[in-house]
Amino acid sequence: MHTLDELGQLFSQKFSVNHFPDQPQGLYEPNNYFLSIGGKRIRPLLVLMANELFGDIHEDSWKVAFALELMHNFTLIHDDIMDDAPVRRGKATVHELYGASTAILAGDVMLIRAYQYLNQIDISYLRVINEIFNQTSTEICEGQQYDMAFEERTDVKLDEYLKMISLKTSVLLAASLKMGSIIGGASVRNQDHLYQFGLNLGIAFQIQDDYLDCFGDPEKFGKMIGGDIKKNKKTFLAIHLQNVANETEKHELQQLKSATEEKKVERTLAIMKNNGVDQWAWDLKQEYFNKAMYHLEEIAVISARKKELKYLAEFLISREH
Amino acid sequence: MHTLDELGQLFSQKFSVNHFPDQPQGLYEPNNYFLSIGGKRIRPLLVLMANELFGDIHEDSWKVAFALELMHNFTLIHDDIMDDAPVRRGKATVHELYGASTAILAGDVMLIRAYQYLNQIDISYLRVINEIFNQTSTEICEGQQYDMAFEERTDVKLDEYLKMISLKTSVLLAASLKMGSIIGGASVRNQDHLYQFGLNLGIAFQIQDDYLDCFGDPEKFGKMIGGDIKKNKKTFLAIHLQNVANETEKHELQQLKSATEEKKVERTLAIMKNNGVDQWAWDLKQEYFNKAMYHLEEIAVISARKKELKYLAEFLISREH
Repeated sequence: MHTLDELGQLFSQKFSVNHFPDQPQGLYEPNNYFLSIGGKRIRPLLVLMANELFGDIHEDSWKVAFALELMHNFTLIHDDIMDDAPVRRGKATVHELYGASTAILAGDVMLIRAYQYLNQIDISYLRVINEIFNQTSTEICEGQQYDMAFEERTDVKLDEYLKMISLKTSVLLAASLKMGSIIGGASVRNQDHLYQFGLNLGIAFQIQDDYLDCFGDPEKFGKMIGGDIKKNKKTFLAIHLQNVANETEKHELQQLKSATEEKKVERTLAIMKNNGVDQWAWDLKQEYFNKAMYHLEEIAVISARKKELKYLAEFLISREH
Repeated sequence: MHTLDELGQLFSQKFSVNHFPDQPQGLYEPNNYFLSIGGKRIRPLLVLMANELFGDIHEDSWKVAFALELMHNFTLIHDDIMDDAPVRRGKATVHELYGASTAILAGDVMLIRAYQYLNQIDISYLRVINEIFNQTSTEICEGQQYDMAFEERTDVKLDEYLKMISLKTSVLLAASLKMGSIIGGASVRNQDHLYQFGLNLGIAFQIQDDYLDCFGDPEKFGKMIGGDIKKNKKTFLAIHLQNVANETEKHELQQLKSATEEKKVERTLAIMKNNGVDQWAWDLKQEYFNKAMYHLEEIAVISARKKELKYLAEFLISREH
């Protein structure tokens, strides 16, 4: 078995090949650029680690890991156009650098390249892996659609937000683990526990992300506090605040929409603390993290093999705090 | 065996199901709308006809026909965004009606739905059909990229334009035929002849399209003459004209770019006729059509079975003239 660091290095080495031909340069250079700006490569690592829970890493896990990383990057390129985001990972986004038309097409061909890697795996599980891949990509698109639709609404409920976040981010973590476990030869029961592990971990991670934006240590968090509040973004904390604030507070929150950014952040955080929203979010994150760990526990392999997955989960969830 | 009309009706019936779930409506309604505005459904017909050349239509050919029609519609939705086209088939385009962000996402999920249909076919040819599908979708993206890049250039050569057109439109016709023939049980040699038949037919069709825009009968052609000239669009005729016009004519063509549309069309057509560009295009179309028919002839099945494909080819190529 490999440590998380070893797998990270191995993947990084294997993945640093040309995934695209040279021509047409106008199409493939943007993709090479976007892949070169990196990322945490969490999804491929989950494939490899899930495979290794049950046996040696099979060549097909690398193919699936490539496919999932490319598919993830396809969603990022297209999401950045839709969100009109000029920067990702500190670098210019594809549409910012090459225009929206090229970014649409570059994303399209990135997804198709993912399918080309998938199509190289052993025929015995080709259909089932394709099925999970298709289902998951569809869900990610649905999640993005809900996310955009929620921006226009003021009455988004917590369970709707939870569903959106699950679709937009968690299902891919879950699916990565499940695919790796299938290649590793896991039983259906173990596959399902890994899927649930990933799903709940993803939700815990998102709650933490929303929490840190409000209550993180700016020095450790690496960005300014209150970015979501400034943009009136829907988050676990913002939606819960609407549920628990009293009428006076709701009135103030409404007024704050036209206040200076500084004041808006300061007062919103104060009202959140008044209502214990910080503690609520912390507990909710812990609840999903515990669910994730329960499913990891339930997987029928000796616990020594689970060490690295547990380490990764704890690393993701104790981030910057 | 079925006639072309019978297959058209059968496909239309089978295809008029819900390809998408109800929710999220904001994502799937645009796709249902776009599919409802129709189209000639040429690609699925080619799958079915190619299958029927060799044997009864297999259930899998319907799946592949669905997949190809959806993939074709995915490219149209995204191309319309890139080309900023407000209208297709006389109706508002998806981005025009629902915004560019939704149109990007709707196209994405349309492509993934195509892969879901593909993934249902028999395992014995799943990999090879996927491979052709992936290769072809990639080529279509490459063709679109070349098309966009050519808009910025004034020195596009005829063979570059031919390559772009082949990628953007012909390879999909060719691939549709090849996939149908594989399901029908054709030999590799017959598969290849069908592919070449589709490729050359597609090129002949495009030359005709470019020709009709200049020299078609407006009443039969169904739109105004000279649309491509007005937009300074690169076409087989426009590129060839640059190769054969003398210096005085080239100078006039340059001047015409800032002339009124009416004058630009009138004079460009006159210079084309002076140089025999109309006859040249007509002959070139015939050359590709003959190549297509040669490959149809070469397919080793009795000629009676080829009747409907021959009829379709002649129908496409004698269009509006």
